[in-house]
Amino acid sequence: MAPERDDASRPLSYADAGVDIAAGDKAVELLKAHVRSTLRPEVVGDIGGFAGLFSIGRLTARDPLLVASTDGVGTKSLVAARMGRYDTIGIDAVAMCVDDIAASGAEPLFFLDYVSVGHLVPEMVESIVAGVAAGCRDAGCALLGGEMSEHPGIMEPGEFDLVGFAVGAVDRAGVLPAGVAAGDVVIGIDSPGLRCNGYSLARRALLEVAGRSLEEPAWPGAAHSLGDELLRPSVIYSPALLRLRAEVDVHAFAHVTGGGIVGNLSRVLPDHCDAKVTRDTWPEPLIFREIQRAGSIPDDEMEHVFNLGLGMLAVVDPDDAPRALEIVRAAGRQAFAVGEIRSGTGRVTLARA
Amino acid sequence: MAPERDDASRPLSYADAGVDIAAGDKAVELLKAHVRSTLRPEVVGDIGGFAGLFSIGRLTARDPLLVASTDGVGTKSLVAARMGRYDTIGIDAVAMCVDDIAASGAEPLFFLDYVSVGHLVPEMVESIVAGVAAGCRDAGCALLGGEMSEHPGIMEPGEFDLVGFAVGAVDRAGVLPAGVAAGDVVIGIDSPGLRCNGYSLARRALLEVAGRSLEEPAWPGAAHSLGDELLRPSVIYSPALLRLRAEVDVHAFAHVTGGGIVGNLSRVLPDHCDAKVTRDTWPEPLIFREIQRAGSIPDDEMEHVFNLGLGMLAVVDPDDAPRALEIVRAAGRQAFAVGEIRSGTGRVTLARA
Repeated sequence: MAPERDDASRPLSYADAGVDIAAGDKAVELLKAHVRSTLRPEVVGDIGGFAGLFSIGRLTARDPLLVASTDGVGTKSLVAARMGRYDTIGIDAVAMCVDDIAASGAEPLFFLDYVSVGHLVPEMVESIVAGVAAGCRDAGCALLGGEMSEHPGIMEPGEFDLVGFAVGAVDRAGVLPAGVAAGDVVIGIDSPGLRCNGYSLARRALLEVAGRSLEEPAWPGAAHSLGDELLRPSVIYSPALLRLRAEVDVHAFAHVTGGGIVGNLSRVLPDHCDAKVTRDTWPEPLIFREIQRAGSIPDDEMEHVFNLGLGMLAVVDPDDAPRALEIVRAAGRQAFAVGEIRSGTGRVTLARA
Repeated sequence: MAPERDDASRPLSYADAGVDIAAGDKAVELLKAHVRSTLRPEVVGDIGGFAGLFSIGRLTARDPLLVASTDGVGTKSLVAARMGRYDTIGIDAVAMCVDDIAASGAEPLFFLDYVSVGHLVPEMVESIVAGVAAGCRDAGCALLGGEMSEHPGIMEPGEFDLVGFAVGAVDRAGVLPAGVAAGDVVIGIDSPGLRCNGYSLARRALLEVAGRSLEEPAWPGAAHSLGDELLRPSVIYSPALLRLRAEVDVHAFAHVTGGGIVGNLSRVLPDHCDAKVTRDTWPEPLIFREIQRAGSIPDDEMEHVFNLGLGMLAVVDPDDAPRALEIVRAAGRQAFAVGEIRSGTGRVTLARA
């Protein structure tokens, strides 16, 4: 909010209106080291131009396509604000964008972030961007640019929004989905938490309906708090997906975001196929049970809002499935054969065994 | 805000938590025609994949660089919300991003938008994206993707934020700034309004300190309201800049955003040059006088926050200046010789004649 002015007749400054240019300048200084930690050789020039420059002269694709995606962290930002912990939410923003790109078969090249805050505290913005930079390093993409914006009058101090934007590249021949067919196996890759989806429902169920606090244990006996659990950073799948594609003929990836397993798997399913995914073929993280109980949420609603523990699906030929599971596990993730593709009409079902 | 529930024990749904999936689906349907109106031949596939695809196989640059920028519309969104008029703010988002790209010497290729709303009203989102699409058509870039996000609990119904991302391409040999030298002329291109900068100060001065309403005439005798004036869409300069570059050896463009003429011209000035820009060499739009008077804002503060009527500057050799002025005017904008480059130490001065 704009500071109070004791004398309404004295000249008005930008600072009086709630915008602190010096804080912005200080934040920019604090961010530089984080940005530099993500540099790739293709990045041209230094921080501070009107736009970021990235060389594509050495792309090896025969018929290169750029692949672009934008996404935000949704109301997970409110959990971070309530906890006063800003250093991992940037990982979430990167995950949401680069995993959409990787799901199209592409390699992420660069990322830009947009941070809006109610009141610009340089150290808070630095913390957010440190998380973004960590996510970019995980994903192997350069943090090519970004924008900070102070929105007095829209957001309260401490509140923020974080939006990401990623660009990758893929050869036209390598765009996914391609070749999904009856008999294929659906492999699920684990997500220990919510990623960035369903937070409005989770907060309503846990914090309002059940009246729980972020400070109490995540579930009975848990060593970490509910807030820790809800702030758990999203897995960045893109390096594992790139490795998987390098060794196995992947037919499709489905990034499980809003719409859940059913909504997202159906986006990559051809009209002549159905998919059947079976619950209980992977361990569902306890947080989903907690949310469901807190809000008495029906199974069907849970399945359409949350990832239920699988943040990414891969569709492969059954002969490739064992090797695919091995590769994903070698990349440090848990992986499970969770379903199959059948002849059909483009329908996805998710049912208990 | 989440709807009230009359029975706290009944099962909780996503709609109860303030997120309306059906409204989201309806909005997506409404947006398709707007998105299609911006298609370029390089766009691959249809709307609905995890990411947008754009072919760069036919880029003619010898050593191509991608150029990326992100920006938002700041608290201009509050004026739109207060006026209930959402159909031009998208033009502003496009202008902010593509003109940063054009200032680097690049041609904008594609754009993505991120709209967050307190409560998702499909027709309101359609209106916002219709403006984005209009901006994209003006700039000649494809609307390649976007995201809508409902943020109950952060924003009030009717409030929104709009963030844009643009990607362009340029040959490495054509990146600007390049060759700014003593003797060069600074050409200013007109901005009839604020673009997206300084809204927190403008709103504070006009609406709070001076107690004016958005419905009254913009200034004494004006036929349009203060709200109309403040919502005036940003000029999209990129087509004029591309035309200018095609015919004249431009040394630099400076996109006049936060920091004003001085702050942005100094970003393209080499260490061994100064720039001197003279006020009164172009007509300053009346809205700036209104803001300055309303808040008793010193000249210096006005100059560092607002564009004062010049949204883009071009730096050219003095021999090219007359032709450059002609080309910009032929592209439908007003243009003025407003300053000069001298030997110096990287300082920009803006002074009255």
